[in-house]
Amino acid sequence: MPTGKLHLVPLGGLGEFGMNCMAVRWGDDIIVIDAGLMFPESELLGVDIVVPDISYLTENRNKVRAILLTHGHEDHIGGLPWILSELNVPVFGTEFTLAYVEDKLEEHGLLEDAELNELTPGESVKIGPFTITPIRVTHSLVDCVAFAIHTPLGVIIHTGDFKVDATPTDNKLFDLHAFAEYGKAGVLALLQDSTNVERKGYTPSERSVRRKLDEVFARTEQRLFISCFSSSIHRIKLAVDLAWEHGRKIAFVGRSMNNSAEIAEDLGYIDIPEGLLIHPGEMKNFAPNKVCVLISGTQGEPMSALSRAAVDNHKHAKIEKGDTVVLSSRIIPGNEKPIYRVIDHLFRREAHVIYDDGSYPPVHVSGHASQEELRLIINLVKPQYFIPVHGEYRQLKLHAELAATMHGAVGNIILIESGDVLEFDELGARKVGKVTVGRVCIDSGSRTDVVEDLIIKDRRHLSADGIVLPIIAINKLSGRVEISPEIVTRGFNAGDDGLMEGARQVVVQTLEHSNEEEKADYGVIKEKIRADLKRYISKETQKRPLIMPVILEI
Amino acid sequence: MPTGKLHLVPLGGLGEFGMNCMAVRWGDDIIVIDAGLMFPESELLGVDIVVPDISYLTENRNKVRAILLTHGHEDHIGGLPWILSELNVPVFGTEFTLAYVEDKLEEHGLLEDAELNELTPGESVKIGPFTITPIRVTHSLVDCVAFAIHTPLGVIIHTGDFKVDATPTDNKLFDLHAFAEYGKAGVLALLQDSTNVERKGYTPSERSVRRKLDEVFARTEQRLFISCFSSSIHRIKLAVDLAWEHGRKIAFVGRSMNNSAEIAEDLGYIDIPEGLLIHPGEMKNFAPNKVCVLISGTQGEPMSALSRAAVDNHKHAKIEKGDTVVLSSRIIPGNEKPIYRVIDHLFRREAHVIYDDGSYPPVHVSGHASQEELRLIINLVKPQYFIPVHGEYRQLKLHAELAATMHGAVGNIILIESGDVLEFDELGARKVGKVTVGRVCIDSGSRTDVVEDLIIKDRRHLSADGIVLPIIAINKLSGRVEISPEIVTRGFNAGDDGLMEGARQVVVQTLEHSNEEEKADYGVIKEKIRADLKRYISKETQKRPLIMPVILEI
Repeated sequence: MPTGKLHLVPLGGLGEFGMNCMAVRWGDDIIVIDAGLMFPESELLGVDIVVPDISYLTENRNKVRAILLTHGHEDHIGGLPWILSELNVPVFGTEFTLAYVEDKLEEHGLLEDAELNELTPGESVKIGPFTITPIRVTHSLVDCVAFAIHTPLGVIIHTGDFKVDATPTDNKLFDLHAFAEYGKAGVLALLQDSTNVERKGYTPSERSVRRKLDEVFARTEQRLFISCFSSSIHRIKLAVDLAWEHGRKIAFVGRSMNNSAEIAEDLGYIDIPEGLLIHPGEMKNFAPNKVCVLISGTQGEPMSALSRAAVDNHKHAKIEKGDTVVLSSRIIPGNEKPIYRVIDHLFRREAHVIYDDGSYPPVHVSGHASQEELRLIINLVKPQYFIPVHGEYRQLKLHAELAATMHGAVGNIILIESGDVLEFDELGARKVGKVTVGRVCIDSGSRTDVVEDLIIKDRRHLSADGIVLPIIAINKLSGRVEISPEIVTRGFNAGDDGLMEGARQVVVQTLEHSNEEEKADYGVIKEKIRADLKRYISKETQKRPLIMPVILEI
Repeated sequence: MPTGKLHLVPLGGLGEFGMNCMAVRWGDDIIVIDAGLMFPESELLGVDIVVPDISYLTENRNKVRAILLTHGHEDHIGGLPWILSELNVPVFGTEFTLAYVEDKLEEHGLLEDAELNELTPGESVKIGPFTITPIRVTHSLVDCVAFAIHTPLGVIIHTGDFKVDATPTDNKLFDLHAFAEYGKAGVLALLQDSTNVERKGYTPSERSVRRKLDEVFARTEQRLFISCFSSSIHRIKLAVDLAWEHGRKIAFVGRSMNNSAEIAEDLGYIDIPEGLLIHPGEMKNFAPNKVCVLISGTQGEPMSALSRAAVDNHKHAKIEKGDTVVLSSRIIPGNEKPIYRVIDHLFRREAHVIYDDGSYPPVHVSGHASQEELRLIINLVKPQYFIPVHGEYRQLKLHAELAATMHGAVGNIILIESGDVLEFDELGARKVGKVTVGRVCIDSGSRTDVVEDLIIKDRRHLSADGIVLPIIAINKLSGRVEISPEIVTRGFNAGDDGLMEGARQVVVQTLEHSNEEEKADYGVIKEKIRADLKRYISKETQKRPLIMPVILEI
C-alpha cells in the first residue's frame, strides 16, 4: 500500500441543488469532476446564474491537471466558462458532452484557448497519478458516463447522474458489466447520485414516454406543440420519429432547442429525414394537422418561446383554439407558479394542454435512479466506503440511511457536504477539515462579451458599477402604470440627469410595448424591463450596474 | 315565473387561487358569498395580504344586505376586516366559522360594531328576496356548509369548499339527502368547488391519516413534533386523541395553533382530557417520550414557530437528535423552496422528518373533492346550469369539461371568471358584461392598529408614506455583512440624517442577532429586517412606508 493521502473535496452540489463540482487530490495532483452551475433563487434578483467558489482550485492552481465531465447538463458543465477563465486546464468529456461545451465556450469567446479531450466509454486516460475509465451510464441526456478513478489507494467510482434504463432510445446500454467487474475486483469508494432517493421502486425507461406521445399524435387534429428540456435528446428523438410516422413536419422554436437538436443531429443521435424539418416561418404554409412544433420553455421562463407564445407574443409560434400543447417535463421545485401561469394562458386560448398529472402512460419520466436502481448499483460495486453525492442535505441523509441497511454490500458510510475535505489513507477515511466554498453570483450581461463580465469580483463591492432599481407602480386591474416610473440608484454614477430621464423613458416604452397579460405577469415584465434597461445603460455608459426592477401592485 | 334579472357576480376566486367572493343580486338586493384573502406572490415584496377589489359592492352600498360565509378558511373569511371596514353589513356563518371571524375582527378592532348571525345547517334564513339554507358539507375544516339560495327564479346551490368524507372525525356527516332533495325538486344552478378537478377517483377521508399518525406515535422514542395547518381541526383532534392513548402530554406552539385549538375546544370539537395539556415552557420537565408538540409553520413561513425551531431559534421548541417531526400538510405551490429548506435544517439536527411522500397510509389528505365526488354531487343536484367556481382558469376549464360529459345530469355549462356578470332571467342565462375587480394589496402593519392601516388607498400614491429599501450585501459563505447596509428611500421624508443612521443600526443589529442559518435563508432574514425596521420607523416617525429589503449575495 503506498503511503500518501487521497482527498475528496466537494466544491458544490453536496447539500444543495446544482453546481456539481468535486476535486480529487493525491499529493500535488488535482483532478476536478464536473463544473456545474445553479439557477439562482428568486430572492437573488438581478442575478442570472450561480457558480461554485473555486478558491480551493485557484489557491492550488499549479496542481490542477484537468476537469472531467460526466455529462452535458448545466448543473455539471454550466460553470465551465467561469472556471476556465480563471484556470485554463484541459477538459475531458464524451463526444456529445464536448459538443455542448464547445457551443458554450464559443459563446463566451473561450473556445480557441480551451483544450478539449474526447473520452470514449471503456477507454482509460492517465492524468498524473490517476487513471480514469469512463463507464457508460443511461440518463435523460445521451452519452453520459460514470468515472472509475484508479488512485494509488484503490478505485473510486463516481456515478455522475444516472438511471438504469434497460431500453434507452439510442440503444446504448448502461454498462452493468463494468460496475460488476469493478465490484468483484474491489472498490475503495462509491459516490452515487442522490437525486431520487425519496422514490421507491424503479424509474421508468425513456422509451415509456413514446406510448403517451404516440397517443397524442394520433388524437391531435390541429397543431401540436411539444415542449421539453432542450437537452432531452431522447424526447426530441421520439418526437421527430413520431412526427415522421404521423405525417407532420417538424419546426424547432427557441434558441436552445435549435442548438441542441443541431448538435444531436450532427452527432447522429437524431435522424431527421430529408424534408421533415421546416423553418418556423414556414408553419403558416402547412395545414395545422401537418405541423409539430418542438418549443423550449417548460419551466415558464419569462422570456422563453413557450411563455411568449402563450401570450400571443411570438413571431412564429401562434397558439390557436384547438391546438395541443404537451409539456413533456417535470416541474422544477420553485417554478410552479410561472409554469401554471403559462398553462392558464394556454387554456384561455382554448388549447388542449397535456402535462404530467401522474397518469399512465407518462408524458415525462425522471432521468435519475430510484431506490431499487440505487440498491442494484451498490450491490454490484460493493464499496468499502459509500458517499452520497448530488443532492440536498435531506437527500444525502436518506441516501446514507438507504445504504446503511445494506450490510453485505457496504463497508462504511460517510456523509460529507460541499467544503468538507474527506481524507483517505492506508488506515481508512475521515473528514479532516474544511475549505472555502460558496456561491458566486453572475449577472451574465450581454452574450457577446461575457468573458469580461465573468470577472465579477469587482461586483463584490457595490461601489464598482452600483445598483439601479427601477420602481414601477402597476394597477393590477387596468395594467396601467399609475405614476411615472421612479429610478433609484446607489453607487452608480448617472453622470447627467439626461441619462436617468432616458432610463425612465426606456421603462415607459417597455411597458407600452407589453400586452396586458405580460404586464400582469411580474416575472415577465421585470425581465423585459431589466433586459431593456441593461442594454440602454450599457450603451450609454459602458457600465453594468445590477438592475433590479421593483413592482408595486396598486 | 317572476320577471326580473338575477345576477351572479364573482369578485374573486374564479380564475385565480384565493380571495373567494361572489355577489348574488336580484334587483336592489345583493348578498355576498364569502370574503376571502389571497397570500401575495413573492414578486409583491412588502405586501402581507391581498384582498378583492369590492368597488362593485361599495358602488351599490345601499343594496348590500349581508355576507354569508361557507367556512372559516382564510381564502373565504380573511378579507372580512377589510370589507367590513368599508361596508359594515350583517355577517352570517356557522358557530365555528363565526368563532374564527370574531377572533379576526377583535384583532382589528372591528368586533364591537359587527353584526354576526349564527347559521345552523338545515335552518333557513330570509334576506331580502332570498331564502338561504345552509347544508352541512365535509372539508378539512369543521362546521362547513354549502348554501341553497332560493331566488325568485329558482334555487342556486353554492357548494363552498367540500369533499365527501364518509367518516369525518367529528362524525358530522355530509348532508347528501339535502342535495338529493334539491336535485329532485329542481335546481337552477350548481356552483361547485374546482380545486381538485385534476385528481381522479375519491379523496381519502380525514380519518385515514389516523393510521399513519398512530404508527408514528408507536415508533417515536423521543419528542414528537406534529405540524399541520392551524385550521386542521380534524388533524389536531387526531393528534390529541393519539397523544392521550400513547401517554404523551400535548403542548401547542405558535399563535395560530393556540388560537385555533382554543376555539375548537371551546366549541366541543376537541376534547382535551384534564392534565393532558402543558405549557410549552414545561416541556423540559418531561421525558422526551412523554411529549407531543403541535406546532405551526407547515409552509416554511419565515417567522413561524417551526421555521424558528428548525434553526435553534425558538424559546421552547428545541429539536434534538432523534426527535421526530411530522409535516401533516400539503405543499402549497410556490412554497417548495422554503419548506424543503426547513426540512433540510431538521435533517441537519438529525431529526426524523416525516412528510407527504406519496406513501400509504397518508400523512396528509386533501380537503377537496376529487373527480368522482364532483360527479356524485352533480348527479344528485342535476342542475339546469353548471358553473365551476373556486379555481385557477385551467381548473375551471377542466371542471366544465368534466361536467360536459354528464349529459343526463347537466343542462348547460357556463364558464365565468372574476368580474364577469352572469345574468339569469326567465329565458335562460348569459354573460352580460363586466364589473371592476382586482387585487388590493395590504401591508398590515402593526397588529394593534390595523383598521387605520386598512385604509390603504393613500398607498395608491407612493407619495403618501413612501418606500424604504434597505440594501444588504451578505457574504454567502461567511454570513458576514460585507459593507455597511445602505438605505434607499423614495417619497419618504426621513427628516434628519439621524433617522437613517438609526435605521442602518437597526439593520446591523438584526443581522447580529441572527444566526448563520437564518442569514443564509433570505426569506427569514428579509422578514426579520422588515419587521424590525418597520417598528423603528413607525416609532420614530409615526409613518408606515413600504419596506422592502433587498439582499445582494456576494
